[in-house]
Amino acid sequence: MKRRSPPESLPAEARSPCAVACSLDIFGDRWTLLVIRDLLHGRRRYGEFAASKEKIPTNILAERLARLESAGIITRTPYQDNPPRYEYLLTPKGEGLRPIIRAIADWGGQHIAGTSRRDGTGQIVPAAAVSAAAGAKL
Amino acid sequence: MKRRSPPESLPAEARSPCAVACSLDIFGDRWTLLVIRDLLHGRRRYGEFAASKEKIPTNILAERLARLESAGIITRTPYQDNPPRYEYLLTPKGEGLRPIIRAIADWGGQHIAGTSRRDGTGQIVPAAAVSAAAGAKL
Repeated sequence: MKRRSPPESLPAEARSPCAVACSLDIFGDRWTLLVIRDLLHGRRRYGEFAASKEKIPTNILAERLARLESAGIITRTPYQDNPPRYEYLLTPKGEGLRPIIRAIADWGGQHIAGTSRRDGTGQIVPAAAVSAAAGAKL
Repeated sequence: MKRRSPPESLPAEARSPCAVACSLDIFGDRWTLLVIRDLLHGRRRYGEFAASKEKIPTNILAERLARLESAGIITRTPYQDNPPRYEYLLTPKGEGLRPIIRAIADWGGQHIAGTSRRDGTGQIVPAAAVSAAAGAKL
C-alpha cells in the first residue's frame, strides 16, 4: 500500500485518525450523550436539560452545549430576547447519533440490573422488559 | 401508574436508573471504549494496548483495565509468573459492546473528515470508503 500523507482535514486535536477515537474526542464523557438523549426525547431548552434526573452541573451543561454547537451536532436559536434564551435542536449530524444511544441503552438494559428506558410508546419502564426487537423508543 | 420503589439492584453509584446513564458511568470517557476496540481487534496484553496510536497514559490504562474487570466486561488470566503478566479477554458482556463501537465508528466515519477504520478484511482504510452495509470489520 502506498504511504499516505496524513489526511489534511482531520481535526487538529485528533489523537489518531481512528473514527472511534475522533468521535470520543467529541462525546467521550459521562454527560454529553445524556444531553443528546434528552434532545432525541424532544427536550430543547437549557432548563429542560438541567432538570434531567442526573442533575448535570450547569457549568458542564453550558460547556457541552457550546461544544456540540461548534461540532455541528446542534443548532441554537433564540426564542426570547430579554433575557436572551435559546432553543437547541439536533442537526442531521446530531440525529445520526441515535443508533449509538440506542445501542448503549440496549447494552445497559441487558447487562446492568435495575435500569430503565423508554418503551415504544415513550413510557419509562424497566429496561429488561423492553426487547430491542419489539421497538424501544430510542 | 403505581409508584415504584427504587430497584434494589441498581449500582449504588448510579446517577439515575437510565440505562444510558448507567452505561456511561462505566465507559463514558475518552479511553475506555478504545481499549474495548483493541480487545475486539484481538489485542490481549497490556503492552499491546499501550502501543495503540492514541498512546493511552499507563496509569489510565491500568485503572481502566481494573474497572472493566470489576464490571465483568473483561477477564484477566496470568500468562507469565516472574514478573507476573496477564492476558485480558472480553466476557460475553464485553463482547456485547461491539454494536456500540460499530455505531460510533459508523458515525465518526460518516461525519468526521479524514478518519479511518478497518474494512471487512481488517485493513485500515479511509472511513468514508467503508460502507457499513458492505461490512466493516467492527
